[in-house]
Amino acid sequence: MTYCVAIKLNAGLVFLSDSRTNAGLDQISTFRKMIVYEKPDDRFMVLLSAGNLSISQSVREILQVEKLKDNDDEDGLTIWNAKSMFDAARVLGSAIRHVYERDAASLKLAGVDFNVSLIFGGQIKGEGMRLFQVYSAGNFIEATPETPYFQVGESKYGKPVLDRVITPHTPLDEAAKCALVSMDSTLKSNLSVGLPLDLVVYEADRFQTDKVVCIDENNPYFQMLHNSWGAKLREVFDSIEDPMWNGEATDVPLMQTAGRSLPLKKITTPQEKLI
Amino acid sequence: MTYCVAIKLNAGLVFLSDSRTNAGLDQISTFRKMIVYEKPDDRFMVLLSAGNLSISQSVREILQVEKLKDNDDEDGLTIWNAKSMFDAARVLGSAIRHVYERDAASLKLAGVDFNVSLIFGGQIKGEGMRLFQVYSAGNFIEATPETPYFQVGESKYGKPVLDRVITPHTPLDEAAKCALVSMDSTLKSNLSVGLPLDLVVYEADRFQTDKVVCIDENNPYFQMLHNSWGAKLREVFDSIEDPMWNGEATDVPLMQTAGRSLPLKKITTPQEKLI
Repeated sequence: MTYCVAIKLNAGLVFLSDSRTNAGLDQISTFRKMIVYEKPDDRFMVLLSAGNLSISQSVREILQVEKLKDNDDEDGLTIWNAKSMFDAARVLGSAIRHVYERDAASLKLAGVDFNVSLIFGGQIKGEGMRLFQVYSAGNFIEATPETPYFQVGESKYGKPVLDRVITPHTPLDEAAKCALVSMDSTLKSNLSVGLPLDLVVYEADRFQTDKVVCIDENNPYFQMLHNSWGAKLREVFDSIEDPMWNGEATDVPLMQTAGRSLPLKKITTPQEKLI
Repeated sequence: MTYCVAIKLNAGLVFLSDSRTNAGLDQISTFRKMIVYEKPDDRFMVLLSAGNLSISQSVREILQVEKLKDNDDEDGLTIWNAKSMFDAARVLGSAIRHVYERDAASLKLAGVDFNVSLIFGGQIKGEGMRLFQVYSAGNFIEATPETPYFQVGESKYGKPVLDRVITPHTPLDEAAKCALVSMDSTLKSNLSVGLPLDLVVYEADRFQTDKVVCIDENNPYFQMLHNSWGAKLREVFDSIEDPMWNGEATDVPLMQTAGRSLPLKKITTPQEKLI
């Protein structure tokens, strides 16, 4: 599997991906899942990919030369001449459909789903930043203030901390930290996600960034975050009182039934006596 | 969906389940997923269920009267006369297979998988506590000191905290707290898991428990835990330094590339120039 997350904030964009790919337990490899497309002072775009590696690599390859022709008298839309990220996402959708036309029938005969899941975000001069999640059919959805982040791959382990922290007003470096904590939880619980990580932090209206980093096991910040988060989470856990039960002397709220709820179904003899 | 977790410790067993069932977004209901089977001074068993509700309800119904006959001259093994939890789990497997024989063909015609996932644990006099995860085919696996907990249903959101805290030496009430934190993270991130919760804490060699509680939104302990965990997690998050970048003056470890990793793939022009 894979875990990728991208966050759209008022201040900018954060992209983070792992690099583990597995096709069966004996075939675990490192493949980078992030590509940056940058044209200084004009456009800055990042693509994150999850799903079948042969499909996502083909999509990435084709995307660089993909031309989307809506009608005959146009030169064709590319990610390099698109006037909006929406149009660039349409070009990406078109690239996926080309790979589908080429490979899907053969994959189906081999019993393999046409499965690819992409996050594509950035900024093109003349409009604000935008962030899209793009599906196997080439269709896509856009992030909004209410839903400012997208995840692809093994997304569940790392979702709670994003839900607790991220809003459009979160500062950029704090959101980067949150993405790394989300990744750390995923690494902890899922073997199919692994280092190194690729992290890109983009500030609004810059059309370039120097905050691009590949994080491996020797990265001092990630080591610090990994150790601090684990240790402090444990401290917080220990600082919350254990449940106390009816009859125990305590100031802690008792663990007792309250409200309208019915008691649990309990069977005390083979004769189905219910309480 | 559903989220159920059970933990086997040296000190006892912890069982926790939510109560939300959904068959489509417009059909969300409350169904309890925990049953306690108790024969004082002889056996104490708990069953947690996830998956297709019609299947799990049928299994629960049949389990109370299921007789497993290994050969003809026996009266038949039941959960009430089994000498070991292993045998009781075999009876449960047999109950699942009876429901399969009855329903699977019709379900298949309707395009519905025969999907049920159960956790079954407890203690029968004469042996130690045991905990099993039982699959749709009636086969099962047992928890060990290395893997002291099982989850069924929406298990991923709540897995990281279990991985960080639970060992066989964890005290019983601390493990109950951990299960509740795990459930709280799941409730936060997944709408298909909902209150009320059923919690049972069993102390080794007691063959009964009075630590049985149904937790709804008015439960003071769960309210305290929910609020404290959310607030303190945020404090911990804030206490970890944001990443600092090369060139910024700081004592915090810099966010910089280290070790053997190659730089990210970056495409700066349409001509595929790679750096």
